[in-house]
Amino acid sequence: MSSRGYKAWLHYEGQLSNKGLAKWADCFRSIICIPGERGGVLNTAIGELASGIEALTGNKPEVTDAASAVDRKRCIAAGIIGAMPLDGLAISLAEAEQLPDEGFIIRTIDNGDLCSIAIAGRSERGLMYGVFHFLRLLQTEGIGENGFNVVEQPAFRLRMLNQWDNMDGSVERGYAGRSIFYRNYELLARSPRIKDYARLLASVGINGIAINNVNVHRQETKLITERYLPDVARVADTFRAYGIRLYLSVNFAGPLELGELDTADPLDPRVQAWWKERANEVYSYVPDFGGFLVKADSENRPGPFTYGRDHADGANMLADALAPYGGIVLWRCFVYNCQQDWRDRSTDRAKAAYDHFRPLDGRFRDNVILQIKNGPMDFQVREPVSPLFGAMPNTNHMMEFQVTQEYTGQQRHVCFLVPQWKEVLDFDTRLKGEGTRVKDLAAGKVHPYTHCGVTAVSNIGDDDNWTGHHLAQSNLYGYGRLMWNPDLEAEAIAEEWTRQTFGGDAAVVETITGWLMESWGTYESYTAPLGVGWMVTPHYHYGPDVDGYEYSKWGTYHFADWKGIGVDRTQATGTGYTAQYEAENARVYENLATCPDELLLFFHHVPYIHKLHSGKTVIQHIYDTHFEGVQRVEAQLASWLSLEGKIDEERFRHVTGRAKEQLENAKLWRDVINTYFYRKSGISDEQGRTIY
Amino acid sequence: MSSRGYKAWLHYEGQLSNKGLAKWADCFRSIICIPGERGGVLNTAIGELASGIEALTGNKPEVTDAASAVDRKRCIAAGIIGAMPLDGLAISLAEAEQLPDEGFIIRTIDNGDLCSIAIAGRSERGLMYGVFHFLRLLQTEGIGENGFNVVEQPAFRLRMLNQWDNMDGSVERGYAGRSIFYRNYELLARSPRIKDYARLLASVGINGIAINNVNVHRQETKLITERYLPDVARVADTFRAYGIRLYLSVNFAGPLELGELDTADPLDPRVQAWWKERANEVYSYVPDFGGFLVKADSENRPGPFTYGRDHADGANMLADALAPYGGIVLWRCFVYNCQQDWRDRSTDRAKAAYDHFRPLDGRFRDNVILQIKNGPMDFQVREPVSPLFGAMPNTNHMMEFQVTQEYTGQQRHVCFLVPQWKEVLDFDTRLKGEGTRVKDLAAGKVHPYTHCGVTAVSNIGDDDNWTGHHLAQSNLYGYGRLMWNPDLEAEAIAEEWTRQTFGGDAAVVETITGWLMESWGTYESYTAPLGVGWMVTPHYHYGPDVDGYEYSKWGTYHFADWKGIGVDRTQATGTGYTAQYEAENARVYENLATCPDELLLFFHHVPYIHKLHSGKTVIQHIYDTHFEGVQRVEAQLASWLSLEGKIDEERFRHVTGRAKEQLENAKLWRDVINTYFYRKSGISDEQGRTIY
Repeated sequence: MSSRGYKAWLHYEGQLSNKGLAKWADCFRSIICIPGERGGVLNTAIGELASGIEALTGNKPEVTDAASAVDRKRCIAAGIIGAMPLDGLAISLAEAEQLPDEGFIIRTIDNGDLCSIAIAGRSERGLMYGVFHFLRLLQTEGIGENGFNVVEQPAFRLRMLNQWDNMDGSVERGYAGRSIFYRNYELLARSPRIKDYARLLASVGINGIAINNVNVHRQETKLITERYLPDVARVADTFRAYGIRLYLSVNFAGPLELGELDTADPLDPRVQAWWKERANEVYSYVPDFGGFLVKADSENRPGPFTYGRDHADGANMLADALAPYGGIVLWRCFVYNCQQDWRDRSTDRAKAAYDHFRPLDGRFRDNVILQIKNGPMDFQVREPVSPLFGAMPNTNHMMEFQVTQEYTGQQRHVCFLVPQWKEVLDFDTRLKGEGTRVKDLAAGKVHPYTHCGVTAVSNIGDDDNWTGHHLAQSNLYGYGRLMWNPDLEAEAIAEEWTRQTFGGDAAVVETITGWLMESWGTYESYTAPLGVGWMVTPHYHYGPDVDGYEYSKWGTYHFADWKGIGVDRTQATGTGYTAQYEAENARVYENLATCPDELLLFFHHVPYIHKLHSGKTVIQHIYDTHFEGVQRVEAQLASWLSLEGKIDEERFRHVTGRAKEQLENAKLWRDVINTYFYRKSGISDEQGRTIY
Repeated sequence: MSSRGYKAWLHYEGQLSNKGLAKWADCFRSIICIPGERGGVLNTAIGELASGIEALTGNKPEVTDAASAVDRKRCIAAGIIGAMPLDGLAISLAEAEQLPDEGFIIRTIDNGDLCSIAIAGRSERGLMYGVFHFLRLLQTEGIGENGFNVVEQPAFRLRMLNQWDNMDGSVERGYAGRSIFYRNYELLARSPRIKDYARLLASVGINGIAINNVNVHRQETKLITERYLPDVARVADTFRAYGIRLYLSVNFAGPLELGELDTADPLDPRVQAWWKERANEVYSYVPDFGGFLVKADSENRPGPFTYGRDHADGANMLADALAPYGGIVLWRCFVYNCQQDWRDRSTDRAKAAYDHFRPLDGRFRDNVILQIKNGPMDFQVREPVSPLFGAMPNTNHMMEFQVTQEYTGQQRHVCFLVPQWKEVLDFDTRLKGEGTRVKDLAAGKVHPYTHCGVTAVSNIGDDDNWTGHHLAQSNLYGYGRLMWNPDLEAEAIAEEWTRQTFGGDAAVVETITGWLMESWGTYESYTAPLGVGWMVTPHYHYGPDVDGYEYSKWGTYHFADWKGIGVDRTQATGTGYTAQYEAENARVYENLATCPDELLLFFHHVPYIHKLHSGKTVIQHIYDTHFEGVQRVEAQLASWLSLEGKIDEERFRHVTGRAKEQLENAKLWRDVINTYFYRKSGISDEQGRTIY
């Protein structure tokens, strides 16, 4: 596995050739590392630094642990703050000690002909992140005349991924082959792919991973038993070397499912004892085990409701079992009635998470984190931000995103999601006045959370290139980068990913970056309009089916009739969902005059002839965006094709094939959506374009 | 397995108690059989007769083969015409010899105190059918003062069933559990269920069965190889004892799939030789093997088109391989473009079979039979009769029905299909002037077919009661009975099934018979209206999804918009499908004034305000039938519930459960269909009933 696709953004191809480089060239010949504890992560960091420099410069650097300051001229001095001498490195201890555990400093020391470079981590992990950052800078910007002066620390403490992998080898909502973790109900505990995956994740700052699907089936229930723990421990070892903590999804009905108890009631002492025993056993194999991820009382999964208990009862029971070992419970808030009758207009799925959890604020243990999806529905191409996020000041929160493109083209369409996530992170909840942004909440800056951060559903599988579509790697990369620093511009992330993955040719960088940056808006334009969502083939979630979820039990409706469309979620005449937002935001959404166009149909039912802020009617907007969306895909494909010869053959051909499939599918979306609304409204396209 | 459900209609419970019985009582004490060849079927017949009489009378009859006429007083004389002495049996040899192979005579001889009963078959199978008929008469009508005088022969020579069973144990379109034939890619060759199934089929005259799915997957391709033939032979033995010939579905790409050749071109001599070898091998295991059933060039199955050959080339190649052994090819005509673009309004799936096959008339071998589905689409609740049937005077035909309720409620709804099949069989094609009915064509009375008849997809699985819903047994029973004698009234079949299955209580017989007779119309009323079809959940085909197939590749559209609905298949303005019918029928369908209401939307696109012959508008008809349909289900359920105590607990509870599910699902159909059309048309229900 050494294809370009497999290497993803860790190519380190070609030579460093910036004009400023000469000055620093000698530094790349030796690495001096003053070891701290010399743990696994430190070894990883130094190994990455050495091999990265070798790949970039063509010379293998000498690695020593010489301790004297003199030796640290004409070298890269890498180490851990507190364990490495800082003299001569232009780093003050006071400055360094302000950094959190994962922070680092990269600084060049220009002493004329005795230049050197310092990479100092606040911990082993900080050093490793510094190394990856340093190598990234070399690849994307090179090292100029002035060298570097970088101080970095992550915005969020928890930066996790969730694998929705099943032990039969399938991946729920996976679009890149089979699982790299399981085959035939065994863990692939010695597979080199897991190490390579860990490395990719560490390079963008991921520090936690739950390695099995939140839907915990029969066999997966046994992952926390001796049957599988030895292999789980091996996988944990692999991730530990990259600073990543391992978590497992657990089955709330575990004691029942394994046939050991006749109940899973969280208040039953036998159940509590059972989980304590399980936790004890897990920690005997994985001493730094992260904790349990739980989907309970959701989409037919078992949970505390079965026993007349609430979610705090359920989560706290698990939290008490994990507390002695420092473990945490990641408790998902994706709880709603998935047996709703579409004829019942009073129930609104969007309200469910808030209604279920808000009243429980303050009842959860300190080592419980509520894991809240970014929108109130389910990872649609466009949703408002979940009003639950931040609404429980006394309960730890983390936000859940989706890197895998379930509703956004399934890695057959290009849909770079960083701009979407950035909108979510930048959203001003106003919960503590203007400027209470989601990213501040997730960083623990607003409420005194003991644990907080972000997580996301991964998009990888055992396809050679990890993500099916080569360009879908950008979402995994972008997730890590944005969650390290949510103030990064999406375009900067797109560009640095492109440079590392496809090289620095100007046309290549401009074309791919441009495609990525346009892609979310393009996908939105030819799929479900104006925030209405859900117009997809049921279950599969690929391709158009306007009524596919309209008469279903899933609570996902658009209510289109011959006059109009949309879900009235206002307090005045609708479900009252808007009331879950802080008053000022609620007013914006409640009011047709202020509700943003792109969320109009999420909040309001309007006639097709309703005028948008854009000046267009809703129906003409639908027609226009759908025709334009296809034109945009055509233009993107044409731009991509102009890169022939500048991209290696294999990736060029592969991406071209997917782009052509995207175009055909975009045309299908255009024609189905336009035809559906034309047939329903009877209103013709002003421009007389073809509608069937 | 001795539950009432498992015994189906072969209960033989209780005592014969007609007042006329006394006269014949002595006859039941002994059975005299003058053996012919004493083959397996004769043994089956005599065994069934003896055990049936024992069950019905409580006394085990003596079975002898005493040959003298004297002995044949006070007995049942059972035998084969030509081998049994007819003197004293009131049967003339001349009369008897006019019967075809499968015919029989049942006659009572009233000699005062020396009464006797004769059951004479024209062959072993004729005798067996006579025995089952005799036992059926005893159960349903009893034996009156005047005894019996029955002469029967089947209308159709081939009366087959197709199992859509896969070797993994699944059953395509099966709604009654797993396969009784396969598990884990092995044949259950010694399973007693196969024998019990054969017996059920023989009791209603089925004489052929293809035991694997027409979609022949990888492993099933090997059924005609030594890997499986020993087990196939065992299954053939089981069926042979009940007069049923075994057929196998084959994979047209067999030589390729098994890796033995690099082509399956039917004109390639290597391919021809390969199939001859296969046929030779099959017949070495199963000397009376029926032949091959083939789905070629259909729904992604391989076929002759791959090689630029036509269906005659393909079928004849297989026919030549089977001819030396007397085998036949059953070649399905279910051929259409399943990759159609819904945006293409010029293609009409309904036309496909006729367009593909009609030009090939006369090109097929004498041992090929075209197997033609009853309608031009696919087993919808209402379709016109396929115009292909009978349209090829020089090509053998058989009609394919569907006993399994794929589109008709999946054995969770009651839908007794005999009335539907009877309409098809009674349809006057007018191909040779008025009175050229489908049943005459299938009987070979119109064109000089060397092989002809009927076949159907079975509805059984390994559920204890065979068919999931107890009442769905009536479809398997009714199929056999109607295809033996298409002039039987559907109601008579329903009643005789009910009497045998649930006993003779008047309320039971009236209620169940009434329910069965109403059920098809009821199902039609709350599902897809006016012949439009296809408003079902894609792939699963259960429950409503009006647009589920509207924008798909399957060629199944309704074209509903804000003004109207239906498929214009006229010659004047539509696809021209009507031209495939004989001129007079074509005129009837072409013309809005004469097209029957129930097929209106199959042939015409009309406004919602179009007036039906019934005087209602289309839209009001939709609303009315859907509200009424649910009311009918409610009434049927109420009637059924009134039988509590008159039906055994197990079956009462089971049927009640399914009927309640049917009611809920009927309500869903009602509400989805009405809401869909209200939202699309904007026209209110005249009666102001609830539409969502």
